[in-house]
Amino acid sequence: MNLNLNFKKLEKNYVFVEVENKIREYEANNPKAEVIRLGVGDVTKPLCSESIKAMHKAVDEMGKFETFKSYGPSEGYEFLRKEISKYYLKFNIKFNISEIFINDGINTDLWSILDLFSKENTVLIPDPVYPVYSDVNIIDGRKIIYLNSNKENNFLPLPDKKIKPNIIYMCSPNNPTGTVYNRKELKIWVDYALENDAVILFDSAYECFIDDQNTDDLPKSIFEIENSKKCCIEFCSFSKKAGFTGIRCGYTTIPKELKKDNFNLREIWHRRVSVKSNGVSYISQRGAQSIFTQEGESQTKFNINYYKENSKIICDNLKFLNIWHVGGKYSPYIWLKCPKNMKSWEFFDYLLNNFGIAGIPGSGFGKNGENFFRFTGFGEREKIIKFCDRTKKVFFEKWSK
Amino acid sequence: MNLNLNFKKLEKNYVFVEVENKIREYEANNPKAEVIRLGVGDVTKPLCSESIKAMHKAVDEMGKFETFKSYGPSEGYEFLRKEISKYYLKFNIKFNISEIFINDGINTDLWSILDLFSKENTVLIPDPVYPVYSDVNIIDGRKIIYLNSNKENNFLPLPDKKIKPNIIYMCSPNNPTGTVYNRKELKIWVDYALENDAVILFDSAYECFIDDQNTDDLPKSIFEIENSKKCCIEFCSFSKKAGFTGIRCGYTTIPKELKKDNFNLREIWHRRVSVKSNGVSYISQRGAQSIFTQEGESQTKFNINYYKENSKIICDNLKFLNIWHVGGKYSPYIWLKCPKNMKSWEFFDYLLNNFGIAGIPGSGFGKNGENFFRFTGFGEREKIIKFCDRTKKVFFEKWSK
Repeated sequence: MNLNLNFKKLEKNYVFVEVENKIREYEANNPKAEVIRLGVGDVTKPLCSESIKAMHKAVDEMGKFETFKSYGPSEGYEFLRKEISKYYLKFNIKFNISEIFINDGINTDLWSILDLFSKENTVLIPDPVYPVYSDVNIIDGRKIIYLNSNKENNFLPLPDKKIKPNIIYMCSPNNPTGTVYNRKELKIWVDYALENDAVILFDSAYECFIDDQNTDDLPKSIFEIENSKKCCIEFCSFSKKAGFTGIRCGYTTIPKELKKDNFNLREIWHRRVSVKSNGVSYISQRGAQSIFTQEGESQTKFNINYYKENSKIICDNLKFLNIWHVGGKYSPYIWLKCPKNMKSWEFFDYLLNNFGIAGIPGSGFGKNGENFFRFTGFGEREKIIKFCDRTKKVFFEKWSK
Repeated sequence: MNLNLNFKKLEKNYVFVEVENKIREYEANNPKAEVIRLGVGDVTKPLCSESIKAMHKAVDEMGKFETFKSYGPSEGYEFLRKEISKYYLKFNIKFNISEIFINDGINTDLWSILDLFSKENTVLIPDPVYPVYSDVNIIDGRKIIYLNSNKENNFLPLPDKKIKPNIIYMCSPNNPTGTVYNRKELKIWVDYALENDAVILFDSAYECFIDDQNTDDLPKSIFEIENSKKCCIEFCSFSKKAGFTGIRCGYTTIPKELKKDNFNLREIWHRRVSVKSNGVSYISQRGAQSIFTQEGESQTKFNINYYKENSKIICDNLKFLNIWHVGGKYSPYIWLKCPKNMKSWEFFDYLLNNFGIAGIPGSGFGKNGENFFRFTGFGEREKIIKFCDRTKKVFFEKWSK
């Protein structure tokens, strides 16, 4: 056997694994310490009662001959795809359900989608970025160009016309920076993709953090942009929207207008899915369907607003302490400049060892993340308040000036 | 963007999709007909009550703050991996849980595993075979050599020493032929893999159909064979064992002894999983755990035995009708020679259009499948009896002589 040696090019450890190891070590050495985890982007609120009800019903169906569900459609059940197409309609986007594919979370499809593309593609990825985008392309051996996302462009980079990419990764609201592109900026990206015959792989995992009636003209879907159906694939998930990180369900939308030469990408993907997938758990899909009911929508929004309020408290605290930051308004992520120009890991160790506060070192997201740091608004309010207290009392007296 | 044109090399339609389309067309034209489906290898019995109970409990946990589960470990929960390692112990196979990875069904990992290997590998695949093995390698552009599995070798081919493969796909009990390798034959395969520095990707999805105390010396796991840990990866699933085709849960076992040069494949896989996966639904994993309880084991075995009895009835019928066949004893699959030397699809159409019976054309599994046909023992007993009646009464009067 011959190994895929591209694995050697990966960083030794995934940043989240490394953070988790350090926290565990700290807890072992400080058994009485209460760590405030403002790090990993993971929900903390239990599932809403509508989802619980729907999943109990689905489990019951699984136990009776008349209602038992064996292999489901590889592309997902129609009942869920219909709800998603109706959701798109709220933003005046029309999709046939054949353009919507259920996935078991964005992560899987973010790399599976690369099956559609040869190795001879140049991939454009912003830096800093969610590490999966680059890692999966490193494993595959594609050429990657990183686009500088930094304080100068407010962590919302626009295309560099000198670069001619074939595949473009975008994430808005962004992970890790929490910044969000407005309609005008997204239009610039779509035009750029079309000029270069490139495809945009658009990660909208955090769209639920954008208020329906926002005053900043921030689209929730890339497909709100003119001509985007010719050059975009969108990946969305119920992980953050409905707390489904442990349930595993999301969707991938490939418009029928997306073509290259004589090939329709939606059709190739459909063929691929029929070979490579046996679909997503029926119970998970019924759970996901429930959040589109009026009650489900209201319950999930309640949780999102709770996280958003957390983010606001963190941002207000940073503002008070005069720490430069972005994000946190339409996103659970707050991206800050480490005080006193500390390195990211230096700040991580400092925060953890002195104050029992854990965030994510920005450098784990790319070279432009060095000297930056990510907090998240997930978690319980009392912890967020404690975070503010701890930082106000001691930490920033020394560091924020 | 540049497409992966290997997709053009795939058959236009997956055989199961084509069969389903033909059945749907038949049903539309014959609304009163009752089709007896002995085709797709999918369970029909509802989940056992132990699994239902466990999944209800898991759903409840998801609804409470104290017990809510968000992102789980990418490699799967320890509670399930422990049960699997205990299951291996029944056959005197020792695995640490770090060698066991939970998957969302074998299908996903059968192609994901290829991430470990470069494109410069020659893949040996028996013909006929479960189409996924070859399709995923066609999509990746690897060189495939097919090994003839045919009536002459009783559809249990042994290695051809002239062929020097790097990656070997095996499936025992076999899909589609229902044949099972014995210990001596598996030893020949393991020795052959070691001689060639090849890896065996061993699909044991149907191991549950082998009786614990069988008199034919048939291993349930490739790891029952001496030295196999140095050259094998095993893929198993709860799909057939516990009716989990709609629940999505299985496991992939990579022994720590499996190495190439300085690389430990288990470690690379662990790194890959931490990047590319967010694990499997907590509810599915709790469901899977339940089948290892005494009650769960007894309930799932009851269902397996029901399917096995179905297969026996089908085999007895074929024997009575003097139709050549293999499988059906330690497998849900019965593989038969089409009577009157009919082509596979010809026989499919004949059976469906004249008798409302649906099977799978053997040619859908490779060139050596031509003139052969697959039935499965899944389904309700009354349908199996009806199948026997219909075939005995009319069909074989004409064709079996």
